Amino acid sequence: MFRLPVGKMLTRLAIITSRIMRPDDANIVGNVHGGTILKMIEEAGCIIGTRHCNTQTGDRCVAALARVERTDFLYPMFIGEVAHVSAEITYTSKHSVEVQVNVLSENILTGSKKVTNKATLWYVPFSLQNVDKITEVPPIEYFSPEQEEQGKKRYEAQKIERMETKDRNGEVITPVSLPEPYTVGFSQSSLIHLVGPSDCTLHGFVHGGVTMKLMDEVAGIVAARHCKTNIVTASVDAINFHRKIKKGCVITVSGRMTFTSNKSMEIEVFVDADPLVEAEKGKYRAVTAFFTYISLDKDNKPLPVPPLKLEGEEEQKRFEEGKARYLQNKAKRLADKEHKQ
Amino acid sequence: MFRLPVGKMLTRLAIITSRIMRPDDANIVGNVHGGTILKMIEEAGCIIGTRHCNTQTGDRCVAALARVERTDFLYPMFIGEVAHVSAEITYTSKHSVEVQVNVLSENILTGSKKVTNKATLWYVPFSLQNVDKITEVPPIEYFSPEQEEQGKKRYEAQKIERMETKDRNGEVITPVSLPEPYTVGFSQSSLIHLVGPSDCTLHGFVHGGVTMKLMDEVAGIVAARHCKTNIVTASVDAINFHRKIKKGCVITVSGRMTFTSNKSMEIEVFVDADPLVEAEKGKYRAVTAFFTYISLDKDNKPLPVPPLKLEGEEEQKRFEEGKARYLQNKAKRLADKEHKQ
Amino acid sequence: MFRLPVGKMLTRLAIITSRIMRPDDANIVGNVHGGTILKMIEEAGCIIGTRHCNTQTGDRCVAALARVERTDFLYPMFIGEVAHVSAEITYTSKHSVEVQVNVLSENILTGSKKVTNKATLWYVPFSLQNVDKITEVPPIEYFSPEQEEQGKKRYEAQKIERMETKDRNGEVITPVSLPEPYTVGFSQSSLIHLVGPSDCTLHGFVHGGVTMKLMDEVAGIVAARHCKTNIVTASVDAINFHRKIKKGCVITVSGRMTFTSNKSMEIEVFVDADPLVEAEKGKYRAVTAFFTYISLDKDNKPLPVPPLKLEGEEEQKRFEEGKARYLQNKAKRLADKEHKQ
Repeated sequence: MFRLPVGKMLTRLAIITSRIMRPDDANIVGNVHGGTILKMIEEAGCIIGTRHCNTQTGDRCVAALARVERTDFLYPMFIGEVAHVSAEITYTSKHSVEVQVNVLSENILTGSKKVTNKATLWYVPFSLQNVDKITEVPPIEYFSPEQEEQGKKRYEAQKIERMETKDRNGEVITPVSLPEPYTVGFSQSSLIHLVGPSDCTLHGFVHGGVTMKLMDEVAGIVAARHCKTNIVTASVDAINFHRKIKKGCVITVSGRMTFTSNKSMEIEVFVDADPLVEAEKGKYRAVTAFFTYISLDKDNKPLPVPPLKLEGEEEQKRFEEGKARYLQNKAKRLADKEHKQ
Repeated sequence: MFRLPVGKMLTRLAIITSRIMRPDDANIVGNVHGGTILKMIEEAGCIIGTRHCNTQTGDRCVAALARVERTDFLYPMFIGEVAHVSAEITYTSKHSVEVQVNVLSENILTGSKKVTNKATLWYVPFSLQNVDKITEVPPIEYFSPEQEEQGKKRYEAQKIERMETKDRNGEVITPVSLPEPYTVGFSQSSLIHLVGPSDCTLHGFVHGGVTMKLMDEVAGIVAARHCKTNIVTASVDAINFHRKIKKGCVITVSGRMTFTSNKSMEIEVFVDADPLVEAEKGKYRAVTAFFTYISLDKDNKPLPVPPLKLEGEEEQKRFEEGKARYLQNKAKRLADKEHKQ
Repeated sequence: MFRLPVGKMLTRLAIITSRIMRPDDANIVGNVHGGTILKMIEEAGCIIGTRHCNTQTGDRCVAALARVERTDFLYPMFIGEVAHVSAEITYTSKHSVEVQVNVLSENILTGSKKVTNKATLWYVPFSLQNVDKITEVPPIEYFSPEQEEQGKKRYEAQKIERMETKDRNGEVITPVSLPEPYTVGFSQSSLIHLVGPSDCTLHGFVHGGVTMKLMDEVAGIVAARHCKTNIVTASVDAINFHRKIKKGCVITVSGRMTFTSNKSMEIEVFVDADPLVEAEKGKYRAVTAFFTYISLDKDNKPLPVPPLKLEGEEEQKRFEEGKARYLQNKAKRLADKEHKQ
C-alpha cells in the first residue's frame, strides 16, 4: 500500500505530510496561524531537500533554508481541518535546490478541499563534518529542456535579489513612551526566544520554519494591536536567510507596521540573533521580511483597516516603499489573472 | 503532483504523513519513544477513520479509538530520521472501522529505510450533535470476497476480546514505603495530567494517541527504574478504550512491573479519569494495557534484565499470567516465522 | 514601563518579550495557568542573567535559578491576551544576580492593560566548562548609592533564608486508601516527569521555570480536587532551588494541602529528583514551595473554600504553620497598602 517511487523519481517527488490542525495552531476564533503553515511547509522542504542532497556519495549534509519566495495565503484554514503538505524538487543548481510546496486543506467532515498555499523554497546543503562547507547538489532529471530553462531563470532571478538584500540591515525598533493609537509606535512589538533543541536541525542550527513561525507571531500581534479585530496572514514577501542561527542563541523578533491600504496592513519583521554565551561574536541581523495581514469580520469577510498615522520622515519613507510593494503585487496579481483567462 | 486517488478509493487509501524525529520525541540516547510513534499512528487512524465515516449524508461524526491490536516495535527509530506513517481502511462493520497503519523510518542521510511498526486500530464514529450516539459506517468495497471474509473474522475476534476485558477493573496501585530494589513496589510509578485543549478531538474527548503516549511514558519510567539502563518499547498488547475521557478531566496513569523474562519486562498500565468539576460522575478506569520493554546497551544490543523480586501471592499470580502472555506471544512469533518460510 | 537602554545600560535593562496566550497555556475556562506565567518570567530572567554574566572575558557560563522571592498573581490573564514580560538586573553580588521581572497583560481587542505580576529572581552563574564551578559576576552600575545599599540588604536577607530552608527536607507524601472528601489524603497528588531536552539549559540542567510549571500543575490539581471549581494561583511563597536537576532524571512532583482560610488554600509542593541511570547518586529533594490558590465563580469572583478536614497531629501542626504564613502575608499586604497611602 505504501509504494515508494522507483529509481530517480524517489528524490524528486514523494513528500506528503498530513496533520490535523489543533487549538494551539490557531488564533482565538479558530483561524490557523500563517506561521503554523509556514513551519509545516519548511519542514517538508527540509526533508526532501536533505534527502536529495544525500543521494550521492561524499559528505553527509543537511539542507538549510536560504530563501522563501513570496507566498500568498489563498484561503484561511481552521481548527479540525487536515492540512496536506506536498513537496517536490523542481530545480537544482550546483549548490542549491528549489522545492515547490503545496498546501491543501481538507474538511474531513464535509469532504471539501482547497489549495491554501503554494510556496517556493531554496535550500543550500551544508556538510555535517564542517558546518561552513557547502556541498554539491546532485542534478535532477527534467521532463523537458524548457522545464530546466525556466528553473534556471528562477534561480538567476532569486540570486540577484538575495545579493541586493544582503546589506539592508542595522535598523532597530526604538520603543516610544505613551504612543498614540494607530501610530507605528503604538503597535510595534517584540519577543525573545531562547533557541532550544527541538528548534534545531542535526547541525544545531535553527530550522527556517521555526524562525518564520516566530516572525508571523510578532507580525500578528502588531496587526491585532493596530486594528483590534480578528486578523490573518494574507501573504509574506520573499524572505532571505543570510546567516544561520545556532543553538543556544537568544533571538529577538521585532515587528512594526510600515503601510496600510484600505483592507491590508504591511508589517516589517526583523530577527536578531544574540549568541549569549559566545558574546564576542556579537549580535547580528539574521532575517528581515514583510508580512501582509488582513482584518476579518465574523463571517471571514475583509474589514476596512484604520489608516496608519505617520510620524516623521522615516515612517513616511517606509510607507511609500510599502505602497510601491503593494501596487506592484496588485499589478502582478491582475496580470496573472488575465494570463489565466 | 499531489494526485488524490479517484472515486471510491479516496476513502480507503491515502493518508501518508512524514515527520522528522526531534530531540523531544526521543530519550536521552536518541531512541524515539514508543509513545511518540503510537501517537502518530493514532493520529493517522483518526484522520482516515473520520474522513471515511463522513462520506455519506447524515450526522457529521468523529471517529473515536475503540481498540488497538497488539503492536510490535520491530526496529528502534532515532532523532533525525523521518517517520513515514501510512494508513488504510481494511474493514468496516455497521458501527466500526478497521484501520491498518504502517510506520517506515527513513535515514535521509544514508537513504536506508525500515518498516518499524504495523498496527491495527478499530474506530467507532460518534455523532457531533450527540456525543453518545454512534453513527453508521458507510461500507467499503473489497478487492475480493476472501478479503471481506478475513476482515469479518478479525472483527468478530476483537469483539469477543473487548467484551472479556470490560470488567477487569477496580485494582489500584498501592505505594510501598522504603521498597527494596527489583521489587514491584520499587519501580511502580504514576503521573497525573490535566487534559488540555490540544489533547482533544473536536468533541472535546481525549485522542487515544495522547492517552497511549502517557501510558508509554509511565511504562518507560517503571522499566528504567527497574534496570537503570537505556530501555525501549518492544511491544504493546491489545488496548481497549472502554470509556471516553473528556476535556477538563484529570487522568492518573499508573504502571507496575508484572513479569520479567531474561531479556524483557512486562509493565501493566492503568488509566483512571477523574472529571474534577462534574464530580458527581466519579472516577473511573478508562484504559488498561500491558507494555513490554527491553533494555539496550550502547550498541543497541539487548541486555539481560534483572529478575523481578516477587512479594505476596498477588504479585506471584500476576507474574504467572505475564509469563503465559510471554510464552503465547513467543509461540505466535515462531509460528508466523515458519509460516513465512 | 518599557524604557530601553543606552550604552552600558544594555546589560541591565532591555529584555522585553511578548507572547499571545494560547489554549494550552490555560485551563478549561480560559484562565492562564500560573505555571505558564512563572515559566515565562524565568525564561526572561535566565536570558538577561546569562547575557550579563558573559559580558566579561573568562569562562562562558549559564545563569541558573537559585531563588524566586514570594510572587503574587494580581489579576488573572486569559487566552487571546498578550503577555508582555520585561526583565531588568537590579543588583549583583560577587556570585549572584538579582533580576526583577514585570508581567503586563494586554487585551489587544480592547487595548486594556494590567500589571499581573512582579517577581524577583536570583541567579548564580555556572561555568560551561565545569558545571560545578560558580563564576564571578561582573558588577552593574547603580543610579545612586542608596539603590546599591537597598540591593545589598535584599541580598543579605535572601541569603539567610536560603540557609535556613536548606535542611527542611526528607518528608514524603504517603497515600491514603479510601480517603474522605476534604481531607489532606483526598486531594494530595503527584506526577512524574522524565526530563527531556527542551526542559534543559545548555548545561543539560532543568530550567527553573520548567520545574515551577510542573509544581503549579500539581498544586492546581490538588486545589481542584479539594473544591471542584475553577481555581487559580493567587501567590507562590519564596522558592529556593538548592540542587540542580540533570537531563535524564525522573522528577516526582507531589502536592498536599496544608491550610485553608475562608477564601484561599495553601498547598505544599515537593520536587524529588531521581537520576535513573546514575543510580549511585540516589534520589534527592530538589525544591519545596508553598502555593496559594483561590476558587472562582463564573464571573471570576472568589468563592468560599471548603475547610480542610485535619487528621492527626502532623496535619494539625502543618495547618498552624500555614495559618501563621497566611496571617503574616495578610499583615504585610495591609502594611504595604498603608505605606502607599
